[in-house]
Formats: sequence, structure tokens, C-alpha cells
Amino acid sequence: MVTVDDVLAARERIRASVHRSPLEYTEALSQLTGNKVWLKLENLQRTGSFKDRGSLNKLLLLSDAEKAAGVICASAGNHGQGVASGAQRLGLAATIVMPIGAPLMKAAACRSFGAEVVLAGTNFDEACGEARRIAAERGLTWIHAFDDPAVIAGQGTVGLEILEQLPDVEAIVVPVGGGGLIGGIALAVKSIKPKVRVYGVEAERVASMEAALAAGKIVEVRGGRTLADGIAVRRAGEHTFPLVREWVDGIATVDEEEIASAILTLMEREKTVAEGAGATPLAALVNRKLALSGRRVVLVISGGNIDVNILSRIIERGLVKDGRLVRLMVRIVDIPGALARLTAEVAETRANIVEIHHQRAFSTAELGETDVELTLEARGPEHIRELLDRLTRAGYQIAPRG
Amino acid sequence: MVTVDDVLAARERIRASVHRSPLEYTEALSQLTGNKVWLKLENLQRTGSFKDRGSLNKLLLLSDAEKAAGVICASAGNHGQGVASGAQRLGLAATIVMPIGAPLMKAAACRSFGAEVVLAGTNFDEACGEARRIAAERGLTWIHAFDDPAVIAGQGTVGLEILEQLPDVEAIVVPVGGGGLIGGIALAVKSIKPKVRVYGVEAERVASMEAALAAGKIVEVRGGRTLADGIAVRRAGEHTFPLVREWVDGIATVDEEEIASAILTLMEREKTVAEGAGATPLAALVNRKLALSGRRVVLVISGGNIDVNILSRIIERGLVKDGRLVRLMVRIVDIPGALARLTAEVAETRANIVEIHHQRAFSTAELGETDVELTLEARGPEHIRELLDRLTRAGYQIAPRG
Repeated sequence: MVTVDDVLAARERIRASVHRSPLEYTEALSQLTGNKVWLKLENLQRTGSFKDRGSLNKLLLLSDAEKAAGVICASAGNHGQGVASGAQRLGLAATIVMPIGAPLMKAAACRSFGAEVVLAGTNFDEACGEARRIAAERGLTWIHAFDDPAVIAGQGTVGLEILEQLPDVEAIVVPVGGGGLIGGIALAVKSIKPKVRVYGVEAERVASMEAALAAGKIVEVRGGRTLADGIAVRRAGEHTFPLVREWVDGIATVDEEEIASAILTLMEREKTVAEGAGATPLAALVNRKLALSGRRVVLVISGGNIDVNILSRIIERGLVKDGRLVRLMVRIVDIPGALARLTAEVAETRANIVEIHHQRAFSTAELGETDVELTLEARGPEHIRELLDRLTRAGYQIAPRG
Repeated sequence: MVTVDDVLAARERIRASVHRSPLEYTEALSQLTGNKVWLKLENLQRTGSFKDRGSLNKLLLLSDAEKAAGVICASAGNHGQGVASGAQRLGLAATIVMPIGAPLMKAAACRSFGAEVVLAGTNFDEACGEARRIAAERGLTWIHAFDDPAVIAGQGTVGLEILEQLPDVEAIVVPVGGGGLIGGIALAVKSIKPKVRVYGVEAERVASMEAALAAGKIVEVRGGRTLADGIAVRRAGEHTFPLVREWVDGIATVDEEEIASAILTLMEREKTVAEGAGATPLAALVNRKLALSGRRVVLVISGGNIDVNILSRIIERGLVKDGRLVRLMVRIVDIPGALARLTAEVAETRANIVEIHHQRAFSTAELGETDVELTLEARGPEHIRELLDRLTRAGYQIAPRG
């Protein structure tokens, strides 16, 4: 069983190489959530997530023979980067096995740390199977992403830093995948300050820790695609589950909309890029999934490795939701000048036309009329209402479009 | 003339209310630029930029009569938020005049600090004229964005913090608009450690400080639209220009592509959101505009207040440039099944189809043939070449599209 002494020892062991990430107070999120809120920015860790800590602690604890054999892990992302970076630091050979569909940026990141990257299997489970096979075949040393006492102890150092940076913290909210991060943090923090509350947050679609707590034993959940891919773990760990059951005060779940919205809030208000998993603590706090009010709360932003493509889509969906981007279908008479008249009306409201489609063939309009699809930047729901009113008064027939 | 004692006094004056922003070492940017690079994250300041410092120092130095009169400023963004936030803290009435086209998020931010927002004029100069008129009419106290000794002294506190956080810093790179930030930093840092080099960076399109240095006197430049709107100042200040001439080691300029690319790098590699102005120091360093190699360099990320709409566009343009998003026009025979065959070929290369347009009417193809426009996510230039080769071998005629 991992103890707080293991975490304290891990702290000393990795101190020279692992970044002490900043803890930043945020006025905006404090007001938004009715607490005093600080962000523990593990997304500013060297490889963009807390994984550096656990993997480095594990690598440093390997025997000389295990080190000489070289290390291997299966990972769709952050763990692979943590292992690759740690192995480079210690001069060890590392093999990272990723599913074939994994973002190629992540494979490139592992290679930049000198690791060999093997793409195998169409999902994480298949990649993991192949990694186990290669490990056995080549006699490589297996580095588990979370279910290993040395890894858990390393992740727990996040908790020690929080206690130093904010001694009077009252609650810590942590993303939960396999349970390594929250297990380590809860153990360390509660051993030293039992009154600090520690909460976990899972993606609703892959809530294996919540399911295990409910069942009283580890269970495998079906799992689905989630923005929080970093915590999409279908089965809690043998080492982590008992820690969570003993030390953690509660687990909340958040849905995909809530995660996307939290990512956008962190970007717009806090100027920080969080991946889906890293945004779950804020998603839980904002949506009142945790019994926290008027408290000194630390949200652990566990990582920032999100594909910018996805970020761009989240921004656009967020803008639509906030009424800052809107698509309308407007019927106009099919004569020269009609489009100019419509766009002039729009210009009067100071909405900005981003895209315009004007098509006849597939329109359901009468002959002599046609539909124009407008995509507009607006200032919010009120501005959109004003725009719709104006167009309606001017005699246009309008249908909002999804 | 501002002195280092003014900056030291400002430091004490604003200490309780202004956030000491983190200074973070970055391995990735160190490797990329051949220096040891730290980021001074003023984008994590309360209102998202360093402006809090100067405006609060100025407000605290007002006479009781000036305070009682209420304050006013003209601003397209950060300065307004700084003044509004400071005024709220001190319980003063504040009026912020913005041009009518200003991002409404920024007006909303000022209102959230209790300020009255007046929208006037179609550009900054017109807004400023209107603000001056209102100030005179109502007897309000004018708070200049940069050309005021108290404001300059406040901004200089960034330099004092850098010296504390990294005593052996060798160079500091600072965005330059009106010159308040760099004037204050250079004065403070060089008075204490004369050997530290301080460089400024301007947007090529509005390089008024470079022009002033070249002319030996303040000149007005024409100015154009730039992503770095926070430093789009057409005329250096009467107080700031002498400071820059005396203390600053050099000014570099960066173009719009370089700024956009630096914003994307900060987001992807550093997980931090910088506005255009805040990204200029990295743009200059990456593009070898500064004679810095093997040095301990601090880049001042001055602010993070960027419209997420613009961010989304920068991401997409960046993806195109990196070969991760590509648009192709492919000619196919116009028979059932032809599109299925094409998309199957694309699927074999594991490129992801984002958008597809299939149109006959405007195609320049022969009758019996048609053009399909594909937008694809790829893994980089090499992947795109592989894709093009495959399609060409399969007999397709392809034209890349901008």
C-alpha cells in the first residue's frame, strides 16, 4: 500500500527534474462559482501534463537490470510523453505503443524525446495488448499509466505542492481516470491535513471509478468517446481503487457539453489551454456537482494536450451556444439587387457576415424566390433577437438553422 | 522624468492588489530558439494584461479632488479594463470610451467592473476625441494609457519582478505600443542591473517607436490593421520616447504571419493564450530578429485578451500552413459510384475528410466529368504528398486550392 512517506520520498527523488507548477488565484472563476478558486496549472508541466511526475518516480526506482532492459508503455497520449521524457532524462531506451488513430502530434512529441513509437491496434485496448506482447518478446520493463505504487506516489507530489502553495486550502478537485492522480493527492493531502476535502471528477461517459464505488468493487464500464480522452479509463486500478475508497470525499460526473464549456471558459477567462480531462474540475464546480460554496478550492488542471483542431471546433460550438455565431435561412425574391438589400439590412445591425450561401436548385421556395443561408457573428442572444426583429419588420421570412 | 525610485514606490503602492504573475521556464521554446527561455505570464494578470499595474498606480496617486471627480479614459481594450478594475477597487466612478466597433466582450468586461462604457467614433482616434470632450464637459480626471509618469512607473514593476524571479536574467523582450511597458521595465531593470539587455518588439504595420528612433524625434506613422491591436499605437509618447531612447538596446518588428504563428505556438506548446501583442516577443525571437543566442531570455507575454473568433481563425490558418489541413480539387467522372471510389482512396491514406463540395454547374470540367472539392485533415506535408501520390497513381487529376 502506498503511504505518505512514499509521496514525500518521491518529492525529493524528482525535485530536480519536475517543474513546480504555478498555483494561480482566479477572481473571475471565484465570482462565477461562489468560492475562492485557485488553479493548479499542471498543463504547464514540461510535457503538458502531470504524468511527468509518476513516470519519472517509477523510472528512478527501477533496478539497474530493469533500466538496462529498456522501458515500454501503452498510451494514447500523456503517459507516453511522460515516460518518453523521463527515459530521455535518465538515458533509457523507451518504446511507446499507441493506437493507430492517435493524434500524430502526440507520436511526434514522444519521438522528440527520443522514444521509439509503435502504432498498433485501432483502440487503446488493442494497443495495450500489442504493447504487452512486445514487452514479453523483447524483455522490456512495463511502465503502467496509473496502477503502480511508484506512479501513484509520484502523482501525489501535486498534493504536497498545493499544501505548500496554499496552506489553508479547504478543498481540492481532481480529474479521475484510472485513479493514480487522485489516489496520490488524496493520500498525501489527507495524511497531512485530514480536514481538506478531496473530490474527483469523471466524464459521465466513462465513469469507472464511480461505478466501482457504487458496486463496492472494481467493475469494467462500457465507455464511450469523450472530449476528456485523458481520463477515459474503463476500469479502476487494483492499487488506486482502495486509495480512492479510503481517502476521497466524493466523485462527480460531467457531460460533454459541460466539459466543452469549461475548456472555453478556461481559454477565454483564464488564458490557459486545458485538455478535456483537465477542464473537468471546473465543469463540476460551475455546474454545482460538488457541495462547495464559499470555500478555498483548488482545481487541478491536469493537462493541456488538446488537439488545436478540436479546440477550434469547441470555440465555434461555444460561440453558437452563446449567441455569438448564428446561422439563418432567409427567403428573398430572386431578382437582381435582392441580396444587396438583405446584406444592407444586416449591416445596419452591425452583425458581421462570415459566410453566405445562395442556392436555388435545392430550395423549397416558390419559383421566383430563393433561400439564402447566412452565417453571422453577433454580440449575443439579444443582438440576434434585434437582428431577427429588424429582418422580420423588413418583410423577410426567416428560419434559424442549427 | 521617471526614476527607478518611482518604480520601487509603485511596487509597494500596488503590491496588495496586483498579482505577481508567474515566470515559467520553457524547454520547448528554449530548444526552438537556441536560448534558455522563460515566459513572464502577464496574460494571467487579473484583467488579462499588465495594464492593471500602471492604472492602479496612477489612480492611487490622484489627489482627493481628482478621485472625487471620477476618472475617464479612451481604450479599445486592455487599458479600459485596467482602469475599470482599479477604479472599482478604490471605489471611484469610471467612464471608458471605446470605438463603436470594439469587441463587445471588452465592453462587457469593463461594465463587469462597474464602469460606464460609452461607445463613440469608428476608430480609436475618434473615440479618444470624444473621450476628451466628455472629460472636459464633466470635469473628469484623464487617465492616459501610457504617456504618464505614474503609469510608466506602474508598468515598470514587471521588470522588478523579473529580477527577483530570475536574478541572472540576461535579456528581456517586451512588446512596444506607446512605450509605457518597455519604458518602465528598461528603466527599472537597467538602473539595477545595467548589463541586462532590454529589447522591444513592434508590429511591422504600426512601428511608431522604431520610426521615432530612426528620426531622432517622435513621428506619427500611418498605421494599419494588425493582429497585435494592443500595441497599434501610431505615435510614441512624450514621456516614453526619451526613456526608450536612453535605456532600450534595440527594437525589432514582426509581420502578421509571424505574430499569428507565435500565438499558435504559445497555445500548442505552452498551453497559454496570448493576444497578438503578447506574442510579438516570441515572434521576434523565433524569426531571429534579435541578436540573442545561448542567453537567458525572458519574453514578456503582456496580455491574453484575444477574441476567440480570431483564435479559431488563427488555428485554421496555422493548420493549413503546417500541412495539417488541406483543400484539394479533384476531377472525377460524373457517374454513380465515382465519389465512393474517391473517398475510399482517401480513407486508405487515413486522412480525415472535414468537408466535401461536389458541384457541377461552375466546374470547368468537360461534360461527363465533375470537380470535387475536398477539405482534409492530414498529418503534415509528407502525409499530403503521400495522399497526392496515391490519388495521382489512381488516375485522378488534382489541383491544390488555397
